[in-house]
This record gives sequence, C-alpha cells and structure tokens, in this order.
Amino acid sequence: MKLYHYWRSSSSWRVRWALAYKKVAYEGVAVDLLSGESDSETHLARHPFGYVPVMEIEGQMLTESLAMIRYLEDVHPKPSLLGEGLNPIARARIVELAETINADTQPLQNLDPQFLHSDDPEKRKAWAKHWIVRGLTAYERLCSKTAGKFSVGDSLSVADLCLVPQLYNARRYEVDLSPYTTIARIEKNCADLESYRASEPSKFEPKKV
Amino acid sequence: MKLYHYWRSSSSWRVRWALAYKKVAYEGVAVDLLSGESDSETHLARHPFGYVPVMEIEGQMLTESLAMIRYLEDVHPKPSLLGEGLNPIARARIVELAETINADTQPLQNLDPQFLHSDDPEKRKAWAKHWIVRGLTAYERLCSKTAGKFSVGDSLSVADLCLVPQLYNARRYEVDLSPYTTIARIEKNCADLESYRASEPSKFEPKKV
Repeated sequence: MKLYHYWRSSSSWRVRWALAYKKVAYEGVAVDLLSGESDSETHLARHPFGYVPVMEIEGQMLTESLAMIRYLEDVHPKPSLLGEGLNPIARARIVELAETINADTQPLQNLDPQFLHSDDPEKRKAWAKHWIVRGLTAYERLCSKTAGKFSVGDSLSVADLCLVPQLYNARRYEVDLSPYTTIARIEKNCADLESYRASEPSKFEPKKV
Repeated sequence: MKLYHYWRSSSSWRVRWALAYKKVAYEGVAVDLLSGESDSETHLARHPFGYVPVMEIEGQMLTESLAMIRYLEDVHPKPSLLGEGLNPIARARIVELAETINADTQPLQNLDPQFLHSDDPEKRKAWAKHWIVRGLTAYERLCSKTAGKFSVGDSLSVADLCLVPQLYNARRYEVDLSPYTTIARIEKNCADLESYRASEPSKFEPKKV
C-alpha cells in the first residue's frame, strides 16, 4: 500500500494517523503542493483535482480521506475509528463531527476557493479564517455534548482525526482558539497518543539542504 | 423520527430518499430557507449553521446528511446504502464518490460561500457553476470505472443519493450536463425507482395559494 501525501496537508495527516493507529505498514510518497508537482499530469492521473492524499491499493488509486479510512476499517477493524460497538446514535455523532470538518470546513478554507475568491492575500486569509471559525464554533457546540476523553466518548475516532489537523490549519491562519475549551481538552488527549506523534506534520517536513 | 427539511435542498433530498428506500416512516417538517425561518433562533438551536436537513431522534438533533444515513443503515440495515456485502474496495468507492459531492462540490457551490464571495448575482452564479462542473467532471471520471446500473455496481448507494440531487442543482445553475454520459445513465436508472419519485423536490413543493 502506498500513500501519496504532503506533510502539511490536513487530509493527509488524517490518513497517516489512521494508518499509525491501526499499525498498518505503508510506503509514503511525498507530493509537493508548492512546486507544481501536484498539478502535474502524473499526479492528475492519480487524483482528478490534483489533491492529496491518494491511496494506492493493488494498483488502484483511491481518493477522499474518509474513503481511505473506511477501507482501513474494513481490512483492519481493530482498533476501530468508526465507533464499532457503540450505539447507532454515537456512531452517527462520529460521522456528524467528522463531516462538520471534512465537508463544511476544510474544503471551504482550502487554497482553491481562496484563490478563486481573490488575488489579494489579505482577502484570502480573511476568507479562510471565516470558514475555520464557523466550523470550529459548530464543532465545539456539538462535541460539548458528546465528548469524553475524545470527541465522542473515550475512544479515538475519525472525528478526532478530522478535528486535530484542522486546528493545525487554524493556527497557520492565526485563528484565536481560546473559545474552544472542549476542543482544547480533546486535542491535549490526542497529543499524548503515539499514533499522533508518528503522523503529525513536523515528522514529515522535508529536510532543509 | 422527524426530518426538518426544505423541498429544493439537495442534502434534504438525500435523506428523504434514504428514508423512502428503506421504507422508514417519519414526520417531515418544512423549514423555509427563503423567509429567514432557517436562521431563526428556533432553527439555529437545531443546527449550528441554520442548515437543513436536521433529523430529530428521541429528542436529539442530528445534523449532516451522511450521519443520518449512517444512523438509518445501522437501525434499518436492509436494503443497504453503504455497500453491505461488497468487498472493501467497492465499499470505499461508494464513500469516495459520495464525498466527491458531499465534501468537494455541494458545500462550495452552496449559498453561504456564494454570498461571501460576491454581491453580484452573475458572479455568484459563475462561482456555483465552477464548483459544480469541477465536481461532476471528477465524478464522471471516477464512476466510469465503477458504475453498473448505479454509481458502484448494480445496487443503489449513498453515492447515487448524493449525485442525483447535485444534478438538480446543476440544472438550476444551467450547467451543461452533456459531457457526463455515465452520470446520465445512472440518473436515468435512479429516476425509475419508486424511492426516487417519493422523495424528489417537486413532491414537496409548497402549494401556491
């Protein structure tokens, strides 16, 4: 199994984290989002938008981080990231929180809509901040009813794997995170995990020559 | 079970369709997106963004259409919408296609980013078309490898439930759908289903007085 990824991409981190948590071996292939490599013919053959991550499974290319995590859950069910063994409402809460980031925050704050919106770097930054603040405000309200140690109860789930990399993006855009007290507690508990440390961006930062 | 929804909302249609396909009884409550009702305190207490749909289950409010479909699949597993019985790659393809619409198309073409982008109706329309064309182009390429009668093989799945309502939005924005030949075949097969006819927008259009 290969994972095409970029060290700072929040969606890439989700999948690296899932692989580390489930202790699945893979070959990581860095795709540079800044040099134009991600928009090369080679990479567009892997992903219609030229995005990362892409998972290569038996020669097939799979896009969408949540599809990769669904695949990993089926092939390596334990430890579960989708709430196996929880009741249907708790399992639905995991999807609700994951999609609050995956669908309603990350794609909106991403570079493509920023650049379609404006040529002005300040306007792009304001655009990204708007969607991140909106998304985290919703997440905080939703998770304050479901969180234990993690976003839903006391087990790590795909909701946490979406949330924490989004916080990394939030800091890059200088979003004030102080209003999000439940989120802060969840992040602290995540940062104690070995799978977090094995997957977080700085671990994959290209060495300066 | 109650479903707060709006007749033309594509995400609402996904959930109405899932309910009809699984033959689950529910009470539908219309929330008007045009009159300001969706941004009222009452509705913001149900959904942090003031969006529809919202599913009320035992007094709890659940947001995110894919979370509702996850819940319905757990409580009413048959007929499956998430590829029960298929191999892990096919199940992942269902998620990949669903998220290509749910995360990478619909939120970007939605009204909130349109209005944050521009006060000019023509610019808003161009914005929406851009994301719809990009999303459907990706979907066509991906589903051309997986489709049978429906997006993945010969069984209806959540991928189809995301795709077909997005086509309804595409027509509202006058997107040329002629390049998408696999998608056209899938839509035709969907339109033959009783659950499609029971859930499609015109069925829920408010009567003119």
